[in-house]
Order: sequence, then C-alpha cells, then structure tokens
Amino acid sequence: MFLNPPNKLNRGVVFEKKNKVSVKEIQYPSFEGIKLDGGLVKQLQHGAIIKPIATNICGSDMHMWRGRTDAKPGLVFGHEVTGEVVEVGSQVENIKVGDMVSVPFNIGCGRCKNCMEMKFSLCLSNNAMMPGAAYGYADMGGWPGGQAEYMMTPYADWNLLKFPDKQIAMSKMMDLCLLSDILPTGYHAAKLAMCTSGSTCYVAGAGPVGLCCAASCFLLGASEVIVGDFIPARLEQAKRMGCHTLDLNKVKDINTAVNDVIGDKYVDCAMECAGYETSGEHGMKKTAPHERPDALNDCMKVAGPLGGIGVVGLFIPGDPAAKDPNHFPLQYGECFNKGVTISGGQAPIKAYNRLLARNILSDRFEVAKYLNPCIIGLDEAPAAYESFNTGVDRKFIIDPHNILRQQFPQYSSAATPFAK
Amino acid sequence: MFLNPPNKLNRGVVFEKKNKVSVKEIQYPSFEGIKLDGGLVKQLQHGAIIKPIATNICGSDMHMWRGRTDAKPGLVFGHEVTGEVVEVGSQVENIKVGDMVSVPFNIGCGRCKNCMEMKFSLCLSNNAMMPGAAYGYADMGGWPGGQAEYMMTPYADWNLLKFPDKQIAMSKMMDLCLLSDILPTGYHAAKLAMCTSGSTCYVAGAGPVGLCCAASCFLLGASEVIVGDFIPARLEQAKRMGCHTLDLNKVKDINTAVNDVIGDKYVDCAMECAGYETSGEHGMKKTAPHERPDALNDCMKVAGPLGGIGVVGLFIPGDPAAKDPNHFPLQYGECFNKGVTISGGQAPIKAYNRLLARNILSDRFEVAKYLNPCIIGLDEAPAAYESFNTGVDRKFIIDPHNILRQQFPQYSSAATPFAK
Amino acid sequence: MFLNPPNKLNRGVVFEKKNKVSVKEIQYPSFEGIKLDGGLVKQLQHGAIIKPIATNICGSDMHMWRGRTDAKPGLVFGHEVTGEVVEVGSQVENIKVGDMVSVPFNIGCGRCKNCMEMKFSLCLSNNAMMPGAAYGYADMGGWPGGQAEYMMTPYADWNLLKFPDKQIAMSKMMDLCLLSDILPTGYHAAKLAMCTSGSTCYVAGAGPVGLCCAASCFLLGASEVIVGDFIPARLEQAKRMGCHTLDLNKVKDINTAVNDVIGDKYVDCAMECAGYETSGEHGMKKTAPHERPDALNDCMKVAGPLGGIGVVGLFIPGDPAAKDPNHFPLQYGECFNKGVTISGGQAPIKAYNRLLARNILSDRFEVAKYLNPCIIGLDEAPAAYESFNTGVDRKFIIDPHNILRQQFPQYSSAATPFAK
Amino acid sequence: MFLNPPNKLNRGVVFEKKNKVSVKEIQYPSFEGIKLDGGLVKQLQHGAIIKPIATNICGSDMHMWRGRTDAKPGLVFGHEVTGEVVEVGSQVENIKVGDMVSVPFNIGCGRCKNCMEMKFSLCLSNNAMMPGAAYGYADMGGWPGGQAEYMMTPYADWNLLKFPDKQIAMSKMMDLCLLSDILPTGYHAAKLAMCTSGSTCYVAGAGPVGLCCAASCFLLGASEVIVGDFIPARLEQAKRMGCHTLDLNKVKDINTAVNDVIGDKYVDCAMECAGYETSGEHGMKKTAPHERPDALNDCMKVAGPLGGIGVVGLFIPGDPAAKDPNHFPLQYGECFNKGVTISGGQAPIKAYNRLLARNILSDRFEVAKYLNPCIIGLDEAPAAYESFNTGVDRKFIIDPHNILRQQFPQYSSAATPFAK
Repeated sequence: MFLNPPNKLNRGVVFEKKNKVSVKEIQYPSFEGIKLDGGLVKQLQHGAIIKPIATNICGSDMHMWRGRTDAKPGLVFGHEVTGEVVEVGSQVENIKVGDMVSVPFNIGCGRCKNCMEMKFSLCLSNNAMMPGAAYGYADMGGWPGGQAEYMMTPYADWNLLKFPDKQIAMSKMMDLCLLSDILPTGYHAAKLAMCTSGSTCYVAGAGPVGLCCAASCFLLGASEVIVGDFIPARLEQAKRMGCHTLDLNKVKDINTAVNDVIGDKYVDCAMECAGYETSGEHGMKKTAPHERPDALNDCMKVAGPLGGIGVVGLFIPGDPAAKDPNHFPLQYGECFNKGVTISGGQAPIKAYNRLLARNILSDRFEVAKYLNPCIIGLDEAPAAYESFNTGVDRKFIIDPHNILRQQFPQYSSAATPFAK
Repeated sequence: MFLNPPNKLNRGVVFEKKNKVSVKEIQYPSFEGIKLDGGLVKQLQHGAIIKPIATNICGSDMHMWRGRTDAKPGLVFGHEVTGEVVEVGSQVENIKVGDMVSVPFNIGCGRCKNCMEMKFSLCLSNNAMMPGAAYGYADMGGWPGGQAEYMMTPYADWNLLKFPDKQIAMSKMMDLCLLSDILPTGYHAAKLAMCTSGSTCYVAGAGPVGLCCAASCFLLGASEVIVGDFIPARLEQAKRMGCHTLDLNKVKDINTAVNDVIGDKYVDCAMECAGYETSGEHGMKKTAPHERPDALNDCMKVAGPLGGIGVVGLFIPGDPAAKDPNHFPLQYGECFNKGVTISGGQAPIKAYNRLLARNILSDRFEVAKYLNPCIIGLDEAPAAYESFNTGVDRKFIIDPHNILRQQFPQYSSAATPFAK
Repeated sequence: MFLNPPNKLNRGVVFEKKNKVSVKEIQYPSFEGIKLDGGLVKQLQHGAIIKPIATNICGSDMHMWRGRTDAKPGLVFGHEVTGEVVEVGSQVENIKVGDMVSVPFNIGCGRCKNCMEMKFSLCLSNNAMMPGAAYGYADMGGWPGGQAEYMMTPYADWNLLKFPDKQIAMSKMMDLCLLSDILPTGYHAAKLAMCTSGSTCYVAGAGPVGLCCAASCFLLGASEVIVGDFIPARLEQAKRMGCHTLDLNKVKDINTAVNDVIGDKYVDCAMECAGYETSGEHGMKKTAPHERPDALNDCMKVAGPLGGIGVVGLFIPGDPAAKDPNHFPLQYGECFNKGVTISGGQAPIKAYNRLLARNILSDRFEVAKYLNPCIIGLDEAPAAYESFNTGVDRKFIIDPHNILRQQFPQYSSAATPFAK
Repeated sequence: MFLNPPNKLNRGVVFEKKNKVSVKEIQYPSFEGIKLDGGLVKQLQHGAIIKPIATNICGSDMHMWRGRTDAKPGLVFGHEVTGEVVEVGSQVENIKVGDMVSVPFNIGCGRCKNCMEMKFSLCLSNNAMMPGAAYGYADMGGWPGGQAEYMMTPYADWNLLKFPDKQIAMSKMMDLCLLSDILPTGYHAAKLAMCTSGSTCYVAGAGPVGLCCAASCFLLGASEVIVGDFIPARLEQAKRMGCHTLDLNKVKDINTAVNDVIGDKYVDCAMECAGYETSGEHGMKKTAPHERPDALNDCMKVAGPLGGIGVVGLFIPGDPAAKDPNHFPLQYGECFNKGVTISGGQAPIKAYNRLLARNILSDRFEVAKYLNPCIIGLDEAPAAYESFNTGVDRKFIIDPHNILRQQFPQYSSAATPFAK
C-alpha cells in the first residue's frame, strides 16, 4: 500500500482468485512511501512513475492465475513493462520525465551487497521475505505490478533502462518491450549454457521464453538450434526462426532424436525453458511419477562432454503438489560422467538489457515477429489470461493507453481477434 | 593383454574378488601393442614404461575392492603413479629414459577432438566403451594399473609430466605423488566451485580428496574453509590445516551449523568430495531412503547467491543398489532460487598438475603432511586395502622398489605400523 | 630439404628475389624426414601429404615478396591451404587418405608445453629459431609452403581439421578455404578485443583480414561495426557486409569521425588489422615520422572505457627500416586513462577453425562473397602477386589441380581476368 | 566548496605550492551540497561524514607535491582513508553513524552507466572533466581529500565498505587501512596480469604498491615472485616477504637476470608498479632519452608466451616534460611476437576491497608489516611528505585524532622517528 497516495485515477489487472483476474481501480503511486509484504516500509524519493506503453502477460503470470502459488487476492499483476516516465522523485538524478524506458522485472536497490556485485536478481533491500524482488508477483515483495495505467518503479536511476530516442523506440516497441523479461531471460539461458560461435543447442520448450532463447543462441553464433515441445503450433514458430524442431509427442529417446537431426547425440548447450511443471498440463507430456521434471532431465541427457545447461524455467524449493516436495529426481550421474555444468535461476535483466537493446536498435536483432504478438486493451486482459492458459501460440501485450495499437495496427487484437 | 610381452619379471596388485586383492606376477609391458576391453587394440610406440616410485591407494579403488563396480578379476589396480621412465617407444619425442614423471590418472591421446579441446578427462581414443580412460579401473578401458613394479603409459609425450630435477623431485615426493590424482582432483572441485580470493568454502568430506580440496581452497585465497565429515580423526586433519570443522554426526541443519561458524548461513563455494554413496558405509550418515546423496544436497543448501558447487565425489548414471538407479533426489529448487551453478566430473589432471607442481617445488604448497601418509611395500598392499576400508585417516603409498621408505623413513610403515 | 624424397613430380611457387616468384619444380614430400632451418631434423611418420584444392595468397606473403623480410631464395610460399589427404605416415591415427582437410598455418606438435596449453601459435618443436612455426614463411622454421601441387603437413592428427563430408565441403570451399588463416585471424582480433553481443566496433584496415574481422564481429553479435581504410574499393566491400565505413583520407580526428557515425566517440572494441607498416605503402597514409603505427594509435584513441584492442596486423621486434627499430611510439596514456586492454599476436587457428567451420557448414556464416575471390591456376600465381601488390580489392586463390575453377566458374580468373 | 558548511572546526593537509603542504583550517563538510571543479554542483543527502582513523600518504600524492601535476593551491590532499562515520545524509540507507568503514579512493555514484557495469574507476557523475573521480587529487573532480579531521564521502551506501565488527577492525587497522588504495591497486595489477596458482611473476617497482602487488601475487597462488627496483632498502622489504629481488642498478638485460633467478627468461605475469616517470628521480635509473618508460618496457620483455602485463603505475596522455608528450616508445613488437596482453589503469577498488578485507579479517593475509608503517600526527604530515620524497622505505599513516598511535605504539613516529 502506498502511503498517502494522490487522488488520481489508476486501473490495473487485479488477481481475484484461482482462474480469475479483473480490471479494477487501484492506487495511484506515491513518492511518500509504500508498505510492502512482511511490513517492509520504504520511502520512494528515488522512484519514478511509469505510464506503461506495453505491458505483457508472461508465462509465469499463469502459475499465479492457475492458483499454483500463494499470490494474494488484490495483487496487481504485471512485470513486463515498457513505458514513459511521467513523474520522478526528488532524489532521481539521471532519469527524466518524458524518458522512454524499459523496466527490468527484477527490482534492485543498487546499494546492497548483491546489487553491487551485479547479482541483479538477488537484491537484499526490496523484499522482506528473501533475496530478490519483482513487480506484481507472489513472494517477490508485494510490489504492485504494471498491468495498469500507472506504476511505481523504485530506485529509478538504477532500475530503468532509458532508450536514447523516443520516436525510434516507439517504432521498435514490439521488440523492445521484450527486454523487461523474456528476451534477457532467454539470453540468460543461452549464456548460462555457455553458447558461443559454432555451438550446437537444444532448447527445451517452445513457449515465448524458449523462442527468445533460440533467437539468443543464434545471436551468440550457434550453428544449430533444436527446439523441443509438445505443441505443434509453437514448433512452427521455432521453425520459421531457422531452428530444427522435435515434436516431443513422437520422441522416444532424446539422444536418438537429436542425433537424427545433427548427426551427434549430444549438443554443446542445453537450455531448460519449461520449468518443473513439465507434465500433465495443457497437452504437455504426462509422466509417472508426476513430479519428474522431464525437460531438465532431457537437458541432462543431451548436454555433451563439458557441455552446459542453462535453466530459466522455474524450479522451486517446495512444490506442494509433489510427493517429495523438496527433491527432484534428476539424472545427475549423466552430468557427472560428461562433466556437464548446470546453472540456472532468475535472469539478471540489467546484465543484458542494454546490449540487447543496442542490437535491436541497430536492426541486427528481431524476435517479436516470431512470437505472434497480439496487442490488447487493458480491459481485454482477463480474456487474454484465459486464452493463454490454453497454450495458444501468442504473446499478449497490453496497451493501457491505446498507443501501441495505433503504431502497430497489424498486431492489434482487432486485426487478429483472440477470443473464440 | 600386451602383445608379445618381453620375458621380464613384473608383479602387481591384482583384483581377485570382492574384498580381496593379491600381489601376483603380471605381464611386463610391451611396446608392440595391447588388447584392451571391447577388443580395442593399440600399438604403443608412443608409450613409455614407468618404474613406479610412489603408487598410491585411492579412495576410488575401494569401490572396486568392495565389489560395488564391475571390475573384472585379474585387473591390476593403481592409477596414482609417480615414477621413473625406464624405456620409451620409438615415437616418443620429449620424454627420456631416466626422467622422473607424474602420471595423470586420465589417459589421453592428444589427438582426438576432446583432448585437443583440453577436455583431458574425456579422451575418445583409449576406451572402447565410453569417453575417458584410466589405469587399473573398472569401465575405464582395461589398462593395467600401476600398483606394480612396472607399468605402461601410452602417448607418453602427452600424458607424462616431467619434473625438471630428479633429486629435488625425490625430496618432495610425498607431495608430488599426489599430483597424479587427488591433489588436482581436490583443486578441480575448488575451481569448479569458483573459489577465489576471499571466498568462503564448505567441503563435504574430509577424506584425502576433501583435504586436498581444502588445501586448494587456501591456495586459491579462500578466507574461510569449513570441512564436514562423520569421522572425527579426519576432521582433526582438517583442523590442523586451518579449517573449521563440522562433525556431521551432530549437525541437524547444515545452514545453521555453517552460520554458527562464519556468521552467514551460506558460503560462496561448496565442494562435494564424498560421492553418491554418502550413507550407510563405515560410520557415514545413515539416511532413508538409502539412495539420497546427502553430501550433494548439503552443498545445494549451503551454496549462497550465485555461488558454485564443485562435485568430484563420484556420481554414476546407473547405481544397481538404488531404488531408482538413474535418478538422484536433489534439492535443485534451492539452487535455482539462489542462482547456484553445479559443475562436476572427473578432474582433468593435465589442466592442473604442472601449476601445482610449481607451487610444491617452490616451497609454497604442502599438503601431504596433513594426510598422514603411510609408505608400504608392494606386499603390504592387500593389508592396506583392508585397513583403508575401515575409514582410517591415512593415505597409503606403495613403494614397490623400496626407494621411498629410504627417503622418508618417518613415514614408512615400519615407523608407524598400520596393521592391528 | 626432405630426406630421400620419392621420385614424383611436384611444382610450387618459389621465391626468387625481391619482387619475383616463379613456378618451378620442387621436392615431393617424404615421410622419412626433413631438414629445417637451423639444422633441425625431424622424422615425419606423423605427417600427411596434402593435395591442395585451394591455396591462397595472403597479405603477409607480400611482406616477403617485397623483400621486407629475410625470406631466403628457394622458399616455397603458401600457408593458406585446404586440400585432400593423399598419403599418411605410419603413426597417423585419425586422418585418412581421401579426407578433405583445412591446414592451419601454424604448425604445432601437440606434445610440447605450449601446444598442450592451447598456445597453438607458439609451438616449441617445429622451429629451431623461436616458438611458433608456419609453412612457407620467413623465420617460421623453413617448412615448404603449400602454393604447390603437393605439400607435407607434420603431426597430421594434431594439425589437420577434417571436414565431415567431402562433397559438401567442396560446395562450400570458397568459405572453408578461409579457415586456414584469415577468417580465424580476423575472428581472433575480435575475440581479443572482447567483442560480444551488442558491442560497438572499429576495425582498422579493410583488407581481407579486416573484412574477415568485421564479419566475425557480426557473428559475435556486434551492434555496430565501423571499418576504416584509405582504399575506397575495399571500403565498398565492407559496406556491402553491413559495416559503416571511414575513408581515412578524409578523417582528421578519429574520435570525431566515430562519433559522427554512432553518436559516441568511443567504441567497445578496436581491431588492428593493418600492421606496423601503416604508412607510405600503396596508397596508405603517409606519416612523419615514417615509423609511427597510426592504425594502432587510432585503436588506442577510439577504444572506450575498459574497452579492448585486438591486434592481428603484424608488429615485429626489430624493424630495420625504422629510426628506432625496437620501439613504437604509442599513445599508451590514452589506454591507461580508459583502462583499455591491448592483446595481439598470431592467431591460434586451431582454437577457432572447428567452430567457424560449423557455422559455414550450417549455412549461418558467409564471408568469401564479400572478398571478391579470384581463382587462378598455379602458373598465374606470379602475376597475381604483382596484382595484389597494387592494393587490388581481391582475394587470390590458387587452384593447382584445376578442380576449384570447375566448381566455381563464376569466380575463376577466366571469368574475371585480373591481369592488366 | 561546500554550500553552507556548518560552523564546526576542521583541519587538513593543504597544498600550497610545489614542494610545500601545510596543515590548515578547512571547511567542515555540509550535506547541503558542494561546488566542484568545472562548476559541477551536487547535493549530498546521499553522503556521509567520516572521521578518519587512518589516512595515508600515497606515492601518487608525491606527483602533486613535486609540482608535476596541475593540482591547485588550496586542495586538501588525501585519498587513502579509513575511519568512522559521524553523520549521514537523509538518503543514506545502509551506512549508519558509528560504522567503521574503508573509503575507496575512486568516487562512484552507483547509478551511471559505468558504475552499473562495474567500471568503478570511471564514474561519469562526479567529475565534470573526465570519467573517474577521487578525493584530494588533481584532475579528479575537486573533491576535498581526507588527510583531515573530517571529510565528506558522497553516495555513502555505494562507496563505503563497512567492517562488520568495529573492535576487530581496530585491531587489524594497519592492514585494513591499505584497502582504500594500495592493496587493491597492487591486487589489480596481479589480476590484470592474470596471476593464478603456479604463476611466475615479475613486479617492476618495490614501493608500497609494488610490495602490495607482490603480496597479492602470493595470495593468488604465485609460485615465484621477482621484484625489481633501484632502492636496496625497498628490495629488502620484498625479500622479507619471500620474493626474489633484482637490484636494477646491476641488471644489464632483464631477461638474463630473470633467467638467473628462476631458470626461465620469461615469466607468466609482469606487473608495472612504477609509472611513466621511471627515470631520473630519487635514485631511479637514468635513461636517455629521458621519457623512455623502462619499467613498462622491462615488463614487455619478460612477459612470456601468452603472458599478461598489469599496469598500475601511472601513465598519462600528455606529459609536458617529454619530447613527444603523447607517445611512449614501447617495445610492442616483443608483445606481439609472444601474444602478450597488456592491461592497465586505475584500480576499481570496490571490485576487490570486500574480498581482501575478508582475508585480512580471517588472519589469512598480512601485508602492512612488510611496508614499514609509520603512524604520525596530522601536524607531522608536511615533514612526512619531505621524507617520503627521498625514497624512504616507509608507509606514512596519518592519525588525525590520536587513536591509532594508542592502538599501535610500536608503529608510531615516537617509536621510530622519521627525521628529516
């Protein structure tokens, strides 16, 4: 809750209960301060208020929507925000009103030990519960999200990435709006897996993050990228990008399948872009026992000698739905034998967003067009959540101020309606 | 089997059956060639014959001795060899008769893809069964080991590390003889865990490899090293080295225990020097279910934000004794949350032995004295295996030619008899 | 001189004297051995005889042709060789007759300290004079070069890169033939300068190496690449590749010129692809004093905070033509102020050729088409040297067996005659 | 000039003119703001006021004292400060009154592009003239130095390193007070030169920074460290630390001299801790021409194949005393031939101070005792400058509040008077 919020209108996508979000009136942000989860109170003179131009629905929002987290009713969703700065606090030095900025989903302070060591995803100051904070997400501190007309970003100088030219930024917004989360997240997976010139790659999962990961592999110079998934429409997207694809419905042995494609049963780099829930949900592979994380085990099998595995699909310490909530059954013997390195976690967006922005702005990197973007109004968000939950091959981008749809009519929901 | 071996005497430690090795007459090596497991035949003009001066019993030999591998009766044990070159093949260019050398336990060829990419532990040429070969070890190709009077090392120019001065080498032999395996193995764990100046470290396991790892952490500049084990005598060795120790018999929660020692429940680097069998054997922690690899899970719990885990304790793809032979139940959610990297495998000895030798030879690194070394004759080997199996805090070094005992009488078995 | 060479025909491009090479009969290689410069004698049972399919003229050959080195009359030129293996020595294990291979210009042994530490350009065994050896080059050991019908490559298993499929290799030969030198050399410059995703780059020199460097920057994910040169035709080649160009004839201040292009007076990475002779020769900038290496100083000026400089243009310890033969006047204060790193030297081809080959073979990397390749017969080589010395924007590829011209008639000298 | 400074007493070491500093009354710091060089005005609510416990005289202060910079009369000297926080601004979050802190000499803001990329020495916000700022130094922004009773540090959360326990910190203060500059600076040189386990090292210069560098090499695991200088007393200090020494007065050829010591004419790592003025001053080698930077050229000669050179001795873009102010005559051909990397610049203190503090506090790293520390009162500072200029083998530590001399009477100037 903001302290003494101004009397201005604001609306956002609010979590009601399992399988239900609504668009409702919410607080307009205040620089005076905020009371967060666990009783943490922060003044916000270092903050900036953003008017979101593009605020996307993320696959990880779906975990909350489906009631698989302890997200509290009333939480404003949204952590993939790109927008214009409309107000700044008294202590902000470099960010100015009118700047067009990308908002990394991780919230940092820029002055705790972890931030100062570039552990951008593990800030110690903005979440009373654990290291790391984010907007609009369960367990991530209680910060209001950005699927809204206005949102607060603390420590604006530290957190915001300013685009040098506003008009150019608008013209590239479909790609730039991926910088707040999924593009750096996919890139992080590829970096963790040590992808470099000539690498052969396997990406587990062809959702938006998996596709961003595949594109990042190519940016890093990969020679071959194989993407595996159970949803044919998503595999088609990967194919258009130049990837090989594996329809996992038909794959018996992952090493054999990879060998059939590239003449080697191992790859240099394997990227887990699926998460611990890789079974039993919307068309994904059913496994027994339920809790076996197949996508990660596939990565362990296909990563070759001294290869790398990058994990950005979510894994959690205690999954209440699992028989053994804390332990995942993993084929680690495979990894040891081959000297494979496994590295994973939330992407430190700030480590990558500036360099990826450069490549987008210099016309050397295009990803959005492969993701089937669909721009919607704020009021269409509840329907979009329902649609996304069916596994549709789309990336929903909310346009709270009807700006993006004017710039990109070809991607607007009016052009390609998504509701049945 | 060597092809046309010369008619010269040779004796070695031969595996008979579970819990039994004997010292028997064995083949003297031949340059003409060798027939290995899986029918692989190799000529050996690139090889050299070594007269071992120090040939140690390794903790991993005990897996075979206890019958927990598929080591075949007749296998000559021994992969920790330091000795003198007594003959060289016609194609050897740099190694000369009379050189004092350390023999890395990994056998490489120096001309396959993996060797040329410095993946020294995963040579493609010397084992018909899988990448990677070693002397005297199950599944590692079938090469005769070096707990013998004489042994063959193929690709001598590639594999052997020559010490610049023979006499100096003899005077430092107690430390130099650790270069064939356990010292670089311990160092590998520390490197994989990204240990560097100021790092805080947890070493799981205070056996000889764990102690070598702790020493390596200090060499790399660690500020604090905590060693955990169940055997008090081994923890005493660690304490003498300057480590903090945790008696795991008394530890309930590893994070609490670590916090009690260094004021932080996390460390930067965690090193697994225990292996998948960390339960139920000689005083080690009993767990239920049996197959839970506690030492690795402890590492997963204590490794801190963006920390590293280095695994050099053995993990295998299929453990016949486990309920689920291929999957280990691991607390990977902990690692994901903290962005921890896990890296493991057989140490690539060649990557480290030269630099560690330099530090030993310049008097800047001493490890052997903490390991309680015990020099024995070849004929004492069978008794030493039995003793080592009880978890005794000793490192047994076989001296087949009665040279080492003359140099280091204080460490000889006559000085400190080991049999009951 | 080969020992007991067989009585078979061979012809090659032989250095006669300053400004003159001829095509003459030369020795056919022998496995029995070779006598090299400084009296070094080597047996060659580890070698292979290559029938060159593509053997290019390199810019560095021109130093010798112009008499600026101590190359001895009689030396067979040529160190950029791609071809077919026609014979192998008795100790060769992995390379087979009929293999299509790329021959790195550095000659390694794979068993000296430097080779085993992946210092591929500084082998200690193949040159009596200094670390590092090469085919057909002054001071590089005395090995006969490959602008010939047949050539010997020692340590074939170590040195040769085999292409997996011969027919596919032939179809990609225009690019694959760059792997022996200039493409990895350009890539080396980019790697030394720490080029990565989003980097801004300045390449000093638009000759074939500079163009290969620019292409490598893009492969590594550079966002902007600026190439500077004095020769407009070469700058046109860079422009076609997607680079910005600076005509150095018109540039007063390099920082201003760079700022005009990318809005920043600094770049992340600067690559020196010109060498110490950057003055006074064929259209290049005249400077006073003569010996000032302007291209390197330009790099020192444009490399930004904590930026990198990669130097692959040649620098030598003693330039007889310079006033102070051993010292170059360098603006190092600029580098110190900005914390810039300078790294340079002969490229270690083996470190890069396999991964670059992968990218060429997977259709993800094309460079040759920007270099204006021109395939000539062996007898046309002397005329090509004269043409290349005028600074022509071409890459000459000798086709000693009339195979390449049949595969790529569009690039043959008959299609685009080069003589005046 | 501070804006509206409070009416409290403060005294500091003030630059008067060439060869003269005085202790005078100076402004007491104000949070309201400061007017810096070039008219830059900054508010300081993010700052903290420090009461220095130990504030050292640095070798680089001597450049200003000798009039070799454009330091303005009135500048308060001092950039090596360790002390207690006595007041904090309203925006400071983590630093508290009473904290014992180390103040890195580089002043950062923690929110410009360079700070956020960990380019800690090149902050863009605190110096109107160029990237990078420091306390009490010419061209570094105009910030008042800390050889004073009180000083202001801006952006306290970002800049200050807090020691966890005040009493323990006091007991280790002789070492901890080196963390503000010379110890991380020496460590930086070693890191830039890629020093690691087993490295052989050459340190050019045995002043306090050179000695800190040598100690850092050992911390990083160097096997051999050779230190060269012209001042025998300083070489004695190096010898006590376990280094080999070269008296450069007697050295003709640096490679020969190094070979005589370690049996190899090359080292892995060479560290320049002397600077561009390495000639003609207080006993240092006279060279002709005057401006030849011998120490750096020595490094270029002794660095071996693929070796590294770390430069922390000062190099500047325009030396008014040199014939060619902008160019240094460097033996870069040597570096190219050997593939050597040269990296240098101001040390980013924040990158190292925390980890080095850990090692000091855990009793694993002691350096001060080798530096012959001499604790003096503030009023003794002018005499200490005169003494230090003679090349005396001492590190002067000013104790403005008579606290340090009580803790360490054995190092106080009363115990070891430093007579003129």
